[in-house]
Amino acid sequence: MTELRQRVAHEPVAPPEDKESESEAKVDGETASDSESRAESAPLPVSADDTPEVLNRALSNLSSRWKNWWVRGILTLAMIAFFFIIIYLGPMVLMIIVMCVQIKCFHEIITIGYNVYHSYDLPWFRTLSWYFLLCVNYFFYGETVTDYFFTLVQREEPLRILSKYHRFISFTLYLIGFCMFVLSLVKKHYRLQFYMFGWTHVTLLIVVTQSHLVIHNLFEGMIWFIVPISCVICNDIMAYMFGFFFGRTPLIKLSPKKTWEGFIGGFFATVVFGLLLSYVMSGYRCFVCPVEYNNDTNSFTVDCEPSDLFRLQEYNIPGVIQSVIGWKTVRMYPFQIHSIALSTFASLIGPFGGFFASGFKRAFKIKDFANTIPGHGGIMDRFDCQYLMATFVNVYIASFIRGPNPSKLIQQFLTLRPDQQLHIFNTLRSHLIDKGMLTSTTEDE
Amino acid sequence: MTELRQRVAHEPVAPPEDKESESEAKVDGETASDSESRAESAPLPVSADDTPEVLNRALSNLSSRWKNWWVRGILTLAMIAFFFIIIYLGPMVLMIIVMCVQIKCFHEIITIGYNVYHSYDLPWFRTLSWYFLLCVNYFFYGETVTDYFFTLVQREEPLRILSKYHRFISFTLYLIGFCMFVLSLVKKHYRLQFYMFGWTHVTLLIVVTQSHLVIHNLFEGMIWFIVPISCVICNDIMAYMFGFFFGRTPLIKLSPKKTWEGFIGGFFATVVFGLLLSYVMSGYRCFVCPVEYNNDTNSFTVDCEPSDLFRLQEYNIPGVIQSVIGWKTVRMYPFQIHSIALSTFASLIGPFGGFFASGFKRAFKIKDFANTIPGHGGIMDRFDCQYLMATFVNVYIASFIRGPNPSKLIQQFLTLRPDQQLHIFNTLRSHLIDKGMLTSTTEDE
Repeated sequence: MTELRQRVAHEPVAPPEDKESESEAKVDGETASDSESRAESAPLPVSADDTPEVLNRALSNLSSRWKNWWVRGILTLAMIAFFFIIIYLGPMVLMIIVMCVQIKCFHEIITIGYNVYHSYDLPWFRTLSWYFLLCVNYFFYGETVTDYFFTLVQREEPLRILSKYHRFISFTLYLIGFCMFVLSLVKKHYRLQFYMFGWTHVTLLIVVTQSHLVIHNLFEGMIWFIVPISCVICNDIMAYMFGFFFGRTPLIKLSPKKTWEGFIGGFFATVVFGLLLSYVMSGYRCFVCPVEYNNDTNSFTVDCEPSDLFRLQEYNIPGVIQSVIGWKTVRMYPFQIHSIALSTFASLIGPFGGFFASGFKRAFKIKDFANTIPGHGGIMDRFDCQYLMATFVNVYIASFIRGPNPSKLIQQFLTLRPDQQLHIFNTLRSHLIDKGMLTSTTEDE
Repeated sequence: MTELRQRVAHEPVAPPEDKESESEAKVDGETASDSESRAESAPLPVSADDTPEVLNRALSNLSSRWKNWWVRGILTLAMIAFFFIIIYLGPMVLMIIVMCVQIKCFHEIITIGYNVYHSYDLPWFRTLSWYFLLCVNYFFYGETVTDYFFTLVQREEPLRILSKYHRFISFTLYLIGFCMFVLSLVKKHYRLQFYMFGWTHVTLLIVVTQSHLVIHNLFEGMIWFIVPISCVICNDIMAYMFGFFFGRTPLIKLSPKKTWEGFIGGFFATVVFGLLLSYVMSGYRCFVCPVEYNNDTNSFTVDCEPSDLFRLQEYNIPGVIQSVIGWKTVRMYPFQIHSIALSTFASLIGPFGGFFASGFKRAFKIKDFANTIPGHGGIMDRFDCQYLMATFVNVYIASFIRGPNPSKLIQQFLTLRPDQQLHIFNTLRSHLIDKGMLTSTTEDE
């Protein structure tokens, strides 16, 4: 997500000014023989120029600055178009895409670790990394299926057993990997193996755990999935644009091409964009209703009576703004007010995910996580800010939007013993009677 | 937990045979200048002999092998005595002890990282590590208080607000640390700083997350806290004893002093110990009843009608065993059968936590995590197997013992909107009527 990325097509792996300040350090393995330190000090394989030939020819007469600008622009439009298509295809496809993105990001990060240290021939490093990915995904997807497909799970006996012992099975699977790691420890590479163990687990924490929050946000309603992601993309583009045309003052050493002008311009543009997008989407049930699994049709249904968040309301405009724009009141969806919080986070804090990724790439002297998308780098380069955003949205919903999920409460109730169920029922009954929401006569109707 | 640990009082830091095979590797920092590589290659400060003077004098005429045997034995008895005292003092003290152990373990592991790389003067490394510890503890303890002290929390307005926005506050606190880390990145130490970031987060994952599961086990009933911990301690001692007297066949290269004889002997001894301890404790309500917070007395109460797990039952003995011991039936508590699973895990899988810790210590060429307990090393040396055990117990309870926590369900129900509460109430009512557990007439009594 480096903003004013003057990517000269054939630029060496690490920007020149980084080379002399970061003399190659020997690898932190116990017996770093000469051949190994040479493998470590040799720069990572330079990613060949990945711009499609047709684009190269079409833009051959432009300066490299503008050529890069066009390549990035065209690929950005292609990605946005792809985004619209998968939204149209609905929740199931979106979930599959989220899983693919997560696996690709994990692959990109693990490959960096592997490329840096493959000369050490660390036993089982990649096998164990993929195995841990499988275990963690099994655990999280299992929890999601148990939460959101409860009636389907209770209906099918094998699923019911897998769901009841889900945590035990997941923990056992993880333990197998943990024990295999302990057994794979080799005297001369202890420290390196522990670093790689930590590397895999932090990657699982950042990429896999947070990508499951994306899916949980999706179940709250597609709007909670689309608006945050769009705000991050919008901020990415707007900060790039504002920086490209007005950028003067460097923002942060980690990303020397980022400027304050881009940062601030991007912020205001994203807030306005968030307000407009929220206004448009709030009018469609398919975007605002929670995604639920319909047991009869065995498919997702997105139908409900929209909550107050998505009903137009009249708001009085504060005096100061009144004098500027002349309106006294304005009709808005309450969700639009929440969208300001989302777009502000996407603009001010989200980029720190990008700075973190930039720092990580500099630590390993690579330009991009991979070269999957011409002009943009790897998938992780595009999604580094999205993960932080997803966690924020999940926490925001849990804190400000909804309480516990009613259908989940009912599901858990149904798994209790009969005496526990009766105890809870009587407790609720006396609570509702106390609150005057229930009188014993209304119960009989 | 190295088993047949022949700790000569004044032995150098790393056992001799490790020295020549693990030539010092340069640190994986970007600009490892000579002074820094000397700092890294110099062995970590040798832990001064920490055996109390009075013990040294009393055991001065013994050989170092037996002297070490007595020092370890005496300190083990002291620790067991301490364990009994804190059990007597009740749940609140136990929770404080668990927190202290967790913080000390975290401190020991972070100090190792700091000692290895302090010459690099990594900005904010320790400050940020402690800050992240604070945030993660704030999050987990907040979740525990919200779960188990619900009525108290709902009664006090400040607590109610802190509880409602708990996840948002915790996430915000963490984000501040995350942004500070990004801002602390220094060009010449990127890679090392990311390693330390990973180091802190894996330590938080292993030590802090799992220690909160210890507290959750405690709330299920003190027996679920005491039996697992005792089984691990018993296995530690018995494996040491069996190895000390019968050890011949090395078990694993990581801990060359561990033997198959110790491993197997420890296993059978621990299973028998688990059965006996469970039998004794199952008879006491204070051990078997869930720990609950009493709002009236503002203290913990441990009183209940013991569940079926803790009621003596008659079991027929399988034919094979009948012929050996001559009994046809046996009266046991069902919990004793579960204790076999706990003691088996403590004996067969728990030690992998110890092997993991051994490998970690070898990776950084240290003998112990610290020298807090004479003859035993640091707190982490004593608790490396307990963390894995705590997670197993937590997963075991959730899978085989109880369903969702009824009081927690009621709590979540009370935070819902009135219309949602009525909807759930009516759903439960029709479910109970369907199941014949409720007829409309019984409701009016």
